Amino acid sequence: MVKVLVWNENRHEKQNEEVAKIYPEGIHGAIKQFLEADDVEVNTATLDEPDHGITEEKLAETDVLVWWGHMAHHEVKDEIVNKIHEHVLNGMGLVVLHSGHFSKIFKKLMGTSCDLKWREADDKERMWVVDPTHPIVDGIGEFIEIDKEEMYGEHFDIPAPDELVLVSWFEGGEVFRSGCTYRRGNGRIVYFRPGHETYPTYYHKDVQKVIQNAVRWAKPVGREYPTYGNAKPLEKIEPKS
Amino acid sequence: MVKVLVWNENRHEKQNEEVAKIYPEGIHGAIKQFLEADDVEVNTATLDEPDHGITEEKLAETDVLVWWGHMAHHEVKDEIVNKIHEHVLNGMGLVVLHSGHFSKIFKKLMGTSCDLKWREADDKERMWVVDPTHPIVDGIGEFIEIDKEEMYGEHFDIPAPDELVLVSWFEGGEVFRSGCTYRRGNGRIVYFRPGHETYPTYYHKDVQKVIQNAVRWAKPVGREYPTYGNAKPLEKIEPKS
Amino acid sequence: MVKVLVWNENRHEKQNEEVAKIYPEGIHGAIKQFLEADDVEVNTATLDEPDHGITEEKLAETDVLVWWGHMAHHEVKDEIVNKIHEHVLNGMGLVVLHSGHFSKIFKKLMGTSCDLKWREADDKERMWVVDPTHPIVDGIGEFIEIDKEEMYGEHFDIPAPDELVLVSWFEGGEVFRSGCTYRRGNGRIVYFRPGHETYPTYYHKDVQKVIQNAVRWAKPVGREYPTYGNAKPLEKIEPKS
Amino acid sequence: MVKVLVWNENRHEKQNEEVAKIYPEGIHGAIKQFLEADDVEVNTATLDEPDHGITEEKLAETDVLVWWGHMAHHEVKDEIVNKIHEHVLNGMGLVVLHSGHFSKIFKKLMGTSCDLKWREADDKERMWVVDPTHPIVDGIGEFIEIDKEEMYGEHFDIPAPDELVLVSWFEGGEVFRSGCTYRRGNGRIVYFRPGHETYPTYYHKDVQKVIQNAVRWAKPVGREYPTYGNAKPLEKIEPKS
Repeated sequence: MVKVLVWNENRHEKQNEEVAKIYPEGIHGAIKQFLEADDVEVNTATLDEPDHGITEEKLAETDVLVWWGHMAHHEVKDEIVNKIHEHVLNGMGLVVLHSGHFSKIFKKLMGTSCDLKWREADDKERMWVVDPTHPIVDGIGEFIEIDKEEMYGEHFDIPAPDELVLVSWFEGGEVFRSGCTYRRGNGRIVYFRPGHETYPTYYHKDVQKVIQNAVRWAKPVGREYPTYGNAKPLEKIEPKS
Repeated sequence: MVKVLVWNENRHEKQNEEVAKIYPEGIHGAIKQFLEADDVEVNTATLDEPDHGITEEKLAETDVLVWWGHMAHHEVKDEIVNKIHEHVLNGMGLVVLHSGHFSKIFKKLMGTSCDLKWREADDKERMWVVDPTHPIVDGIGEFIEIDKEEMYGEHFDIPAPDELVLVSWFEGGEVFRSGCTYRRGNGRIVYFRPGHETYPTYYHKDVQKVIQNAVRWAKPVGREYPTYGNAKPLEKIEPKS
Repeated sequence: MVKVLVWNENRHEKQNEEVAKIYPEGIHGAIKQFLEADDVEVNTATLDEPDHGITEEKLAETDVLVWWGHMAHHEVKDEIVNKIHEHVLNGMGLVVLHSGHFSKIFKKLMGTSCDLKWREADDKERMWVVDPTHPIVDGIGEFIEIDKEEMYGEHFDIPAPDELVLVSWFEGGEVFRSGCTYRRGNGRIVYFRPGHETYPTYYHKDVQKVIQNAVRWAKPVGREYPTYGNAKPLEKIEPKS
Repeated sequence: MVKVLVWNENRHEKQNEEVAKIYPEGIHGAIKQFLEADDVEVNTATLDEPDHGITEEKLAETDVLVWWGHMAHHEVKDEIVNKIHEHVLNGMGLVVLHSGHFSKIFKKLMGTSCDLKWREADDKERMWVVDPTHPIVDGIGEFIEIDKEEMYGEHFDIPAPDELVLVSWFEGGEVFRSGCTYRRGNGRIVYFRPGHETYPTYYHKDVQKVIQNAVRWAKPVGREYPTYGNAKPLEKIEPKS
């Protein structure tokens, strides 16, 4: 069983009719719907709940946190970000979607600006699989095609991914590292590009499939947190002059 | 020409006679001495100078910053750390030595706790070269042996290095990833383990050689900072329905 | 279900009484015994069977091939090696154990000499986990300790692993990259160091656990082999002068 | 001083007038011309010379070998390929251009099929810099644009590059990992995509700049080849029962 918490800013849905029409139960509602499965249990949380819906108790019960944010990254409280950071280092998986590249938690984990080029102009996007061995593209063909999406272009200011799985082609002439994995501490992280709020991207079967795979891949392994600090020798050390 | 700024906390030297005897001109003084060369120009700065000796002007003239800190990481002002962070992302090289693993700037760039096991017990250390192609081990044999050093042991909570160059064997039974490189933004970073203040490690010829190589390797390449933000299409985008 | 084929040279067992006493059913027999599980089906094959027990049909039914060889690498026929190579590129997992580092198939997949230092001198070995997120060390503590083993030392002439999971400390003063993963084509590869024939290493619970994890990790994902060769454009190409 | 040997198949130039017009002194001649510099000495060799112009003596004097081949990969003798392979493992740099992806030496070093999609249809190509820290893109802007080139598309069946530096966008809808580095043994390898024989690509200033950078980057570091084989202990090993 993978216990997933889907977090969504949920502001565009409230302020923009167009978005509300596409995602009547919020982006988190749409994601919850396609993630739920016999082996996946899903809860949701949103920015405007107390503590953004993220308590220590909830995190303690979460195997993998899915994150969608955009216009209100700065409103997420630092103390909550620090809590999430600690849980990731302790093993909680994290799946960061689309504009979450600029979230406080992703930037804190990456150590870089996470900046990129962007354009809202109905670009066609074609995400090519460059690592066919990776479990997050299980069941995916050679590429995923999306009729219309926001463009994200290189240079994407991230550390070189531990694994680069998907690379996007955009109609307007750009490329982008769209499916990336990272390990930080005991936690596994996936960044997956698509999902601008004004497009029905999260109803795309292949996009859903990658996120379904990602939460399973990011589930923590069964092991204790390492011991740090002062350590007794395991072997005899010769006295030195 | 590589313009290097060697930063040192310079507190142990003031408070501990034993350290002062080993490094009468400070650890920064010792490092400056072996770094200076026809193609390397070295300045130094220390914690107790105004702004820790690190101004915007100095950073603007610095190709590579070398960092040694230990007991007073928390005294380094966040605004100075942010300045350094920005310069690294803009291309300044950074060479982090020994206990600098816990410096604010290294933790900010790595995104992890950077924690580790440690022991002050006169362990013998033997650093093995695992990447013989790497310029930072140019001129180094199969390993570097140090008679007595502080032990640092795994798990070292860092992101998987972009390049792992040296792995240490310790007498007391531990191993450690001792020579690691990273890229963050436009900047190149080296972490190099040895250099506990109570040992004369920075007089060791091979240790010096690695740091001499590291500042040359971390020198920024000649290119402009990428453009980020809203981007006009480079190709025609078909109108979509 | 993971379908595993354990291949063993099975020569030391026949020629050396000491080895035969430790592994009365051969090293392959010992490995088969601890790998069999509700979700793992195990077959075995050995060098002296016709075609070394490796037919096209058997490979077609194999998810993950486990390989132990040592004194007779050169007797493995090139045509069989080529067959295995093709199956790995098409998605079959491969777990290479101990002296298998010098097998034709591992060298062919790595492209390097795969050479190393070695010593049979009852070294104590301690394998440290350096990637605590990795599924192949699920259930493993901070290290695996083996009382007596053959020493393998750096430099190990392999490509930098895609993931470095375990690093060994040896009593005689060496270190070694002991748990490594690679992707080649559609196939996932694990190299795992321990298992010299004169020691009862494959009865060690932690060593067994890593191999049990490894065959599950190396299982192919569900996807078709990519299409290569001449490709029609997916978008309109402007005529150029 | 970097001593470069540029190897070219030199068959298209002899058999195809169009190619001969573009490269009257052969592709090797064109490359030699833009590589020669105060710190770079260039020799050339071609397929139809005795031993393909590659003797042990020539290799012994070569720091970096540049390789262009296409229609006659199979005519390159295995013994010559093995010689080159050994020199790369011993430290010689290798820069593989365009259709050299299918050369015997590149496939031997990679361990994979090195297959890809291709199309000769005057695609526009735009190579984006994804690693702005890398010396091989020193002096290059955000991308390199080529009016007309052969398309190479993913999946490119190579091991995940040690460093991914350039990613191509193609007009017809594909992407490609166009600038990749690898380390094998003591040698440094660059794969750089552009250069189909029917286009004047090697007169493109940015393409020239990358290759000029690449030969400097791939130059061997100053160190001895590691020692392999049976090794005496460096520390005392306790007798075990």
